[in-house]
Amino acid sequence: MVAIEQNILAKNDGYAEQNRALLRERRIFALNLVSSPGSGKTTLLVRTIEALRSRCPVTVIEGDQQTANDAERIRATGVPALQINTGKGCHLDAHMVGAALREMKLPQQGFLFIENVGNLVCPAAFDLGEAHKVAILSVTEGEDKPLKYPDMFLAADVMLLNKCDLLPYVRFDVELAVANALRVNPTLAVFQVSAETGQGFDDWLAWLDSGLAALALTAASG
Amino acid sequence: MVAIEQNILAKNDGYAEQNRALLRERRIFALNLVSSPGSGKTTLLVRTIEALRSRCPVTVIEGDQQTANDAERIRATGVPALQINTGKGCHLDAHMVGAALREMKLPQQGFLFIENVGNLVCPAAFDLGEAHKVAILSVTEGEDKPLKYPDMFLAADVMLLNKCDLLPYVRFDVELAVANALRVNPTLAVFQVSAETGQGFDDWLAWLDSGLAALALTAASG
Repeated sequence: MVAIEQNILAKNDGYAEQNRALLRERRIFALNLVSSPGSGKTTLLVRTIEALRSRCPVTVIEGDQQTANDAERIRATGVPALQINTGKGCHLDAHMVGAALREMKLPQQGFLFIENVGNLVCPAAFDLGEAHKVAILSVTEGEDKPLKYPDMFLAADVMLLNKCDLLPYVRFDVELAVANALRVNPTLAVFQVSAETGQGFDDWLAWLDSGLAALALTAASG
Repeated sequence: MVAIEQNILAKNDGYAEQNRALLRERRIFALNLVSSPGSGKTTLLVRTIEALRSRCPVTVIEGDQQTANDAERIRATGVPALQINTGKGCHLDAHMVGAALREMKLPQQGFLFIENVGNLVCPAAFDLGEAHKVAILSVTEGEDKPLKYPDMFLAADVMLLNKCDLLPYVRFDVELAVANALRVNPTLAVFQVSAETGQGFDDWLAWLDSGLAALALTAASG
């Protein structure tokens, strides 16, 4: 079983490198959004797109076991979105994303958001060719999640602590949650946000802009 | 890959039947609690145990990728709990649960709660030998989850709609969520509860009691 798993992951990594090369060539800053189901990934993405779309092209790939609900919500903002249904599958893989990238009209420079299947376990192991995994943890989920699901918080470079508007109504210790996340991954960048109210979005958007700018510089000098 | 998966599931089902036979012999009503991470499984379990433990033995198996936090929270209520850490694994399987059952002192008659790894995808396919899977959905997760993750809501016999105390603070349409769940699985029993306040627990506890009573009758006549 371990050999089979290594084989699958090695194959995936090969496809991920192809995706990464294509995205670099197009100067597209690609983020892989991972979290539990219901942590607010799509709502967060909609608000992020509304802030970005006037200044820069945005493209979205949506992953879910079933339904095209999320791609429809994204398309309603006016940006192109392609839905991948994984059926029995518990995560997106680089081959699926590669096929989606070939199918979509990718712009020259911009953002690609890949919203993974809601699952705090399996997507951690699969590189899709993204620049960064962004883990979303909502304040209704408990402070212990980074310790219980360390692979994901180690694989991510950013943690968005979402639904901060609900803090007055739930027992949730923000400092403890952040400390737990940093214990697993000391270099994690953490932003406290609310996709519902927009709280904390300035810092998150600034981080996105600086990532895109850095990519453009690298591509120009490369 | 499909052949390998079928092989794994067939092997799992064999172990599950052994677990089921042991549990039937001991007249133990076993529930497999499944949900997203952070839907409140452990808090719900603690409150359930506090209501049940004076009248009947309760045993708990806890599943998580890492940490023994949940088993410790359960043991604080005074009932025995064994923690299984799955490491890279995304679900409990019947072989792990069988090993745990052999290690624990099982009472003659009572409840066994198995709290699965927080994951709305992978645990759906794995029978652990339980009488029923109980899916927990919290009102912070959105009404569409049964449609997006239909395998789990089809595999479950009961859905607990948890965190109903937060309904005044979130956009969540209870009727729509229940309709979505029943669209996937028309025979699903649904209870609206709050593990925080105890709201709705009378019906859930009555369901548990009737399940245990039915099992005792079957065992007596068998």
